[in-house]
Parts: sequence; C-alpha cells; structure tokens
Amino acid sequence: MIKIVVGVMGPGAGASAIDLTNAYQLGELIAKAGWVLLTGGRNVGVMDAANKGAKAANGLTLGILPTRDTSAVSDAVDIAIITDMGNARNNINVLSSDVIIACGMGTGTASEIALALKANKKVILLNENQESKVFFKNLSKDSISIANTPIKAIDISRKFLGDRY
Amino acid sequence: MIKIVVGVMGPGAGASAIDLTNAYQLGELIAKAGWVLLTGGRNVGVMDAANKGAKAANGLTLGILPTRDTSAVSDAVDIAIITDMGNARNNINVLSSDVIIACGMGTGTASEIALALKANKKVILLNENQESKVFFKNLSKDSISIANTPIKAIDISRKFLGDRY
Amino acid sequence: MIKIVVGVMGPGAGASAIDLTNAYQLGELIAKAGWVLLTGGRNVGVMDAANKGAKAANGLTLGILPTRDTSAVSDAVDIAIITDMGNARNNINVLSSDVIIACGMGTGTASEIALALKANKKVILLNENQESKVFFKNLSKDSISIANTPIKAIDISRKFLGDRY
Amino acid sequence: MIKIVVGVMGPGAGASAIDLTNAYQLGELIAKAGWVLLTGGRNVGVMDAANKGAKAANGLTLGILPTRDTSAVSDAVDIAIITDMGNARNNINVLSSDVIIACGMGTGTASEIALALKANKKVILLNENQESKVFFKNLSKDSISIANTPIKAIDISRKFLGDRY
Repeated sequence: MIKIVVGVMGPGAGASAIDLTNAYQLGELIAKAGWVLLTGGRNVGVMDAANKGAKAANGLTLGILPTRDTSAVSDAVDIAIITDMGNARNNINVLSSDVIIACGMGTGTASEIALALKANKKVILLNENQESKVFFKNLSKDSISIANTPIKAIDISRKFLGDRY
Repeated sequence: MIKIVVGVMGPGAGASAIDLTNAYQLGELIAKAGWVLLTGGRNVGVMDAANKGAKAANGLTLGILPTRDTSAVSDAVDIAIITDMGNARNNINVLSSDVIIACGMGTGTASEIALALKANKKVILLNENQESKVFFKNLSKDSISIANTPIKAIDISRKFLGDRY
Repeated sequence: MIKIVVGVMGPGAGASAIDLTNAYQLGELIAKAGWVLLTGGRNVGVMDAANKGAKAANGLTLGILPTRDTSAVSDAVDIAIITDMGNARNNINVLSSDVIIACGMGTGTASEIALALKANKKVILLNENQESKVFFKNLSKDSISIANTPIKAIDISRKFLGDRY
Repeated sequence: MIKIVVGVMGPGAGASAIDLTNAYQLGELIAKAGWVLLTGGRNVGVMDAANKGAKAANGLTLGILPTRDTSAVSDAVDIAIITDMGNARNNINVLSSDVIIACGMGTGTASEIALALKANKKVILLNENQESKVFFKNLSKDSISIANTPIKAIDISRKFLGDRY
C-alpha cells in the first residue's frame, strides 16, 4: 500500500534559527507518525534539518533534487530522486506530498505553496512572515492553515489526512 | 539574434474585467515595441486577452502549454510549445522571459512570480491585490516593481531591458 | 546514507509473458539484494510485475508516475512520486537509478535506454529484441551489457555498483 | 493561427560532415516552405547548422534549450525557450513539432525518436546508421519513414502535414 508522504518545504541558505529548530522537530514528528518525509533534498537549511530530525527518529526520508550534483544531497536523505530540472521540481515536491508544511519563507518556498494551492493541496504555514499568511490565506482560504508550533502542524496534518491516517 | 521576449502571466478563468483589459493592452504594447509575447497559451483569461492584443498589433505570440490538448490553445497563439508537464511549465515561462509582467493574481500567477524571483528575474506587478504587493515586495525588494497601468508596466520593462532594448 | 536504487524499465500494456516473468524475478532479486526498486509505477506490464516481485521479497518500491491519476498506480508501489510530466519523467527514472535494467522493449523503454546512455549511465538489456541489442550496443558500446536471465542481470548490476554494493 | 513547426533533431558535438550539410539544407527548405524550425537550440552540430540554414532563407527559428547557459545558444536562434530541465526537454522538442526529422544519430537523437514514437508522432530518419533504421522501423512501422536526402525528407513532411500544409 502506498505510504503517506508529508512534505516539508522551506528555505535553504536563508533559513532562520527558528526555522531550523522547527524543521528538525517536524522531521522527528513525521517519522514518529510513521509517515515518509519528503523534502527538496539539499544539504542546507530546512531540507537538511528536517531530514536529520526524521533520521534521528528512524524515519524514511525522500529528497527530490534539482540537479545531478550528488555532493549537494543531504546526508540524511535515504532515497534521492534526481530530477535535473531545477525549480520546476518544486511542482513534483507538492504533487507527491499528501500534506505540505511550509516551514519558513523564501522565493522557492512561496513557489511551492502557490503550486500546491494550484493543485488543490492542503498547505500548513509555520513561519514568522505575517505578510505571507495574509497573502496566501486571502488567495486560498480553505486550503491554508496556520500553525504556531511543529506539534500543531502535525495535528492539522492528521486532520487533513483523515481516514488515511 | 535572439529576440526580446516579455512574459505576461495572469489568471485563466479567474481573471477580472480589469485584468482582461490590461492584458489586451499589454499585448498591444509589447507587439508595438517589437518584442515577442510569451504566455501560458491557453484560450482563457489573461493569456488569451494578451495574445489577442498582440495579434491586433501584428505581434508574434508564443504560448507555453501545460497539456497536449490542442483545443485549449488560444486562437491568437502563433507558436505553441507543448510541454505536457502541467504547472511545472510555469518555470519555463519565467526562465524564457526577459521581463515578467504579472497581470492579475491567482495561485498559478503567484507561483510564476515566486519562480521568477527565485531565478533572479525582474517582475512587474499590475493588479488590484494589495496583499500580493506587500508580500512579494517584502520577499524580494530589488526585483519587484509596481505598475498601475499597462503603459507604466511597459516603461519599467524598457528600463529593465536596458541595452537590449 | 543514500540507498542503492536499481531501475527496471519495460513496456506497460505491450509486455510479453516472458517480460512479465523476468520483471517479477528482477523485483525479487533486487529486494533480496537490499536495493530499492525504481519503476515507472503504473499498474500494468513490467512496472507492475517488478513491483509485485519486490514486495513478495519484502523490498522497498518507488514508482515515478507520469500523471496525477492515482488509480493508475501499481498496488505494489510503496512510495509514489507524482511528476505530472508525462514521458519527460523517463529522464528522472534513469537519473535516479544507479543501474538501469531494460526488461523487454517498446518506445518508452527505448527512450529510457537512450536517455540513460546520454547521461552516462550503465544499462543492462534483457529482452528478445535482437535489433535493439545491435542498435544500442553500436550506439554506446561501453555502457550497454546484455543479460539472458534476471540472475545474470543482477550479477552485472553488482559489478557496475562495485564499491557501493 | 498556429504556425506549422518542423523539428530537426540530431547530434551536437558528434555530428558528421554529412549530417551538418544535411541539417543546413533542411533548415533552408523548412524556411522556404514557410514553416517554423524547432531544434534543441545549442550552438553545436545539427542544431546549429539547421538554424543557420533556416536563417539564410529568412526563416523563423525556435530553440528549446536544456540549461540556463545563454552562451551555449546558437547565434541563429530567434526565440530561445529556456527549460533548465536537461534532456527531459527532448520530450518538449517532439511534442511541439508537427513532424520530426532525425538528422544523424546519437543517444540524444535516439531518445527524441523514441519519445516521438511514444507520443504517436511521425518521424523521418535521414542518416547513415543502418542499425537505427532497422531498429526503429521494427519498433513502430507506421510512424517511421526513411529519407535519403533533405529534399526527400521535406517531401515526406508535406505528406504527413496533409491538409495543414
């Protein structure tokens, strides 16, 4: 049976200390729930922290990479999908995730939120960027949820997953 | 020599009357400037209106289509690029445009703005959505410009194009 | 640490009885070797048979799907990557595989072999199509190997993987 | 109205002298027929030669580029589509062409022929590689034609285009 996949999207180099702490905890909680963690797979920022958290809790981690540069893959990725399609891979990230948690904010993260909404996916925002919450909530009221902590984000994910959980 | 390509991105079915009027005028002005118009190519909303405006001014129009469904292509598209990659084609839209004008707002348009900023492209916003202006300006101050009219958007495009114009 | 991924590529509806038997056995052997099986993920032909064989041996199976139609996913796929990019996903199949085994022949399979060779990947042919062996061997002598049985294909894979095995 | 697009696919660095001569003449003939030339857009091999031939005859040329490296674009390309998706762009090349002429042979070219056949497109082979003719004709008898000269390839294209010509 197909496993439940939860995507954690967030900035690479531009991630804040809070983003990194949240990402690590999200990874742990996703692994403990028995879900597969999906990220953009690189060895920086939110992607790397979430993967490390998931591995600390013995989870399974999936990285969807933008390039063929294997030196840029997070050590904590179990399975690397090499797309070689740059940021167009952001669409694969969201289509392959049952729920998307946006941890932090940046241009790549914003593109993933927007692509997820376009695909009628549920998105949970966990960040300090108030303008992003106003904008995306206004853009797609029913598909956006706001979480203040990783635990809350996982609670909302459970609700979205419903019967599949 | 490679022609200058200006992309006009905007909603399909969700476009407002003002968006459509602006899109048509943008198409006309882009054609009169001698630039190629690039859009998402479908026969609805901002894409269709911009293409019709460009053809009314004898311009050359390029549509980057998401699917193989040729019945969904705008009649005013001269050259149809069939990607069959859904909204991942939004990344091709912005990478292939020298300047991006976002006319109106929606989830697809928001993804194109974010992907353009991620790729260090200049983006001009022409819309009634104040939250989008606050959010994207905050996200990438130096790459976002605000225009109130199509003529102003074309003026800003000329500045961005600089020597190439 | 990143897991070893072996891709099995082959026809869907056009698979022969021998192709299906070989695909099932390849899936079993890949699982027993401790490798992840990667296929195109659909519920037909070589993809479906290889996934079923791998699950019978308690393997981990990864399906790289061409469309968003979840009803077309093989029951034996553990993790579904939804690309929504049609046959352009064939390039992701080969880039994400450490070794590619082409089981059977068809237009999709031929595209995967050619894309793999273009990316300097090793490809093992296991099929009854003599013309394909002559053509691809001629095209890229050092990257193509011929196997007559699934066991032989796995032996060659081990050699290609070398230190990683 | 959408223009007729004819794709010329062939090797880059590996093109033979005959391939280059044929590609240049194909470009000229496509331009004279009033069709748009589509190629992979790079400044080497068959792509470059075909574009130069088309420009010598005042044609319109479209290049579908694999990377963002603008220094690698042929000088004879009018409109550059930047995909940044490596060889996955080969699928866009064939889906966007009304007819595909494969001039010469290599791994990239073989992938384009196979992807074209998978998409039920007509393909004309113009090359010295006898194994490729045997293999692809065997794979998809009704969709493959063999031409010995550029003029013959254009004659066959006209037949395939039928009413659209």
